[in-house]
Amino acid sequence: MAAGETRELTVDLGERSYPIYIGTGLIIRIGEIFKERAIPVKSPILLVTDSSVADLYADRVEEVFANAGYTVTTAVVPSGETSKSLEMLDELIGAALEAGLDRKSTVIALGGGVVGDLAGFVAASYMRGVRFVQIPTTILAHDSSVGGKVAVNHRLAKNIIGAFHQPEFVLYDLDTLASLPLREVRAGLSEVIKHGLIWNADFVAWCDENADKLLSLDSEALGYALYEGCKVKSIVVSRDERENDLRAILNLGHTIGHALEAVAGYGELLHGEAIAIGMVGSARLAAKFGYSSEIAEETERIFKKFGLPVRIPASCDPEEIMSAMLHDKKFSEGKMVFVVPTAIGSVEIRNDVPSSWVREIVDELREGN
Amino acid sequence: MAAGETRELTVDLGERSYPIYIGTGLIIRIGEIFKERAIPVKSPILLVTDSSVADLYADRVEEVFANAGYTVTTAVVPSGETSKSLEMLDELIGAALEAGLDRKSTVIALGGGVVGDLAGFVAASYMRGVRFVQIPTTILAHDSSVGGKVAVNHRLAKNIIGAFHQPEFVLYDLDTLASLPLREVRAGLSEVIKHGLIWNADFVAWCDENADKLLSLDSEALGYALYEGCKVKSIVVSRDERENDLRAILNLGHTIGHALEAVAGYGELLHGEAIAIGMVGSARLAAKFGYSSEIAEETERIFKKFGLPVRIPASCDPEEIMSAMLHDKKFSEGKMVFVVPTAIGSVEIRNDVPSSWVREIVDELREGN
Repeated sequence: MAAGETRELTVDLGERSYPIYIGTGLIIRIGEIFKERAIPVKSPILLVTDSSVADLYADRVEEVFANAGYTVTTAVVPSGETSKSLEMLDELIGAALEAGLDRKSTVIALGGGVVGDLAGFVAASYMRGVRFVQIPTTILAHDSSVGGKVAVNHRLAKNIIGAFHQPEFVLYDLDTLASLPLREVRAGLSEVIKHGLIWNADFVAWCDENADKLLSLDSEALGYALYEGCKVKSIVVSRDERENDLRAILNLGHTIGHALEAVAGYGELLHGEAIAIGMVGSARLAAKFGYSSEIAEETERIFKKFGLPVRIPASCDPEEIMSAMLHDKKFSEGKMVFVVPTAIGSVEIRNDVPSSWVREIVDELREGN
Repeated sequence: MAAGETRELTVDLGERSYPIYIGTGLIIRIGEIFKERAIPVKSPILLVTDSSVADLYADRVEEVFANAGYTVTTAVVPSGETSKSLEMLDELIGAALEAGLDRKSTVIALGGGVVGDLAGFVAASYMRGVRFVQIPTTILAHDSSVGGKVAVNHRLAKNIIGAFHQPEFVLYDLDTLASLPLREVRAGLSEVIKHGLIWNADFVAWCDENADKLLSLDSEALGYALYEGCKVKSIVVSRDERENDLRAILNLGHTIGHALEAVAGYGELLHGEAIAIGMVGSARLAAKFGYSSEIAEETERIFKKFGLPVRIPASCDPEEIMSAMLHDKKFSEGKMVFVVPTAIGSVEIRNDVPSSWVREIVDELREGN
């Protein structure tokens, strides 16, 4: 792959290592990249995308592949979380069979996290595993597109049916982000900042200084931020692919965040919004453990600067939030597990968090309190 | 694990290596074996079995586990191939969630190949992969329980949605085979003999001499035969886990066999019966490639001795058989891929088999010709 303006980094997983390309004008080079990586022209490709992304980019991607001699079939799924289902898996496996995909074929995810998780599980399970390529088209998906976690939902639990299936490569074309609504930009940047908060204080400071550029989707700033965000993710995933220990730090803000998403009703709070509130909560836990209260103040200030919520909506009942968190068996004995910051840019995993502390913070953070 | 009458062998796959235990009185020691292997008592177990096996062994297994301090929930699926579906996967994932299975839990398959493939895919995909234990209760399942191939069917293709997910161990309790109907015993032995035909001429000779003992389920003979059959399977799988090349030799007789199963209607011909006919066909191909015609005569004689069919039922239309085989894209240019014996006990993979030769053999092998 030529240098130019494209940033490249590697997720280091031995024989499953793969590159992440970040830059502009990349989608129109996908055919060329497939050839460079010796992906066979004879094996048909399945391009999975959703109804909102299909209109914008599917034709272009198909055309580029056709020019390079590849055969591509596009499967469009409805936008939104409900597409992450076994029914949709069944449909896409059918599409793959009808398109004649063989063991050397590739499944491509073109879209946000939902498309990535779903198409990834198709790639993981079709013929017991074929090639997979991620083309994320949201900022949020910089997180889910790296690391190989793929899954669909069950009616009783999210992401419970899945696999670890690393992509062949991740292609981040910044041009595809131009059409994102501002609210989604803010929510996507929440995960970018999270990667700074768990690992890299300098990058948090950089985000702080460059908030305006990031929010206005300045290509240079956004390319750098996604590069740094993906870098933290890849370092962590390289050291602990299957989440035996370290990888859990990526869940900063997610315990409270997931509970808020569930209680508010999925879609009311965007994922990035919910975890921003969650990260403020985790930073307040840090103070209770004796770390500086400035961590919480800084965390809150930065998320506010990015226009993200830092308070729990008044409509969310604290009892329901607690019970959504305590539903998880690990929390059954009054102690909860949390990722807790020890400073801006570093965290620790605590398994001794009294649920009473969490309850206090949930109360403090509710709007109106 | 103590020695006694138990035979043990290892599937050598580096950090995914695992033992196969073959002997009598093993099921009642399963709790003890779990403890020896440091499988945590706190994490609930899901025991998957089918309606015909459940009545015979499920209570006993549950009791043994309870005595060892483990919590087991049993899920019973209907007997037969139709249980290998995404709907059943959905149901079993629900059962796993309701039973509180966590990331350190185990899914056990107690039954034949259908239960093993289905429960194995549950284990592979639940929380992106939990422990899996195989307790095969048929002779045929000595093949499918070793090697980590797990899958469910799609309406358009068998075994198309799956994973490679190696078990923690395979426990073969010969006592569970005592209730097998004779037709299933014969059909199971067909895969045992296949392992001899591809790898070990001495073992084929041994099977030939011990046919009566095997058909009457003599424990000592059966234990030895399953040990030798599993040994061939594990050597091949150890060298090529993901079927890049060598593993394909395990498909001896399967190209014609699968076509016969499909054309006769699933259930009409048992899998072991269909591949016995298929192996006779492959041996006749060997003669066309210039190898000794004695290979085909010997192959036919042995399968007859075991009471297995060696002719294609007259009800199966040759055109349909050919088109079921040619449906596979790899065969599109008039040349077919076959595993062909070069002698009793060794095979080669040929990708230059003229479809006209196959057609001739299909005609020759039809009953009444």
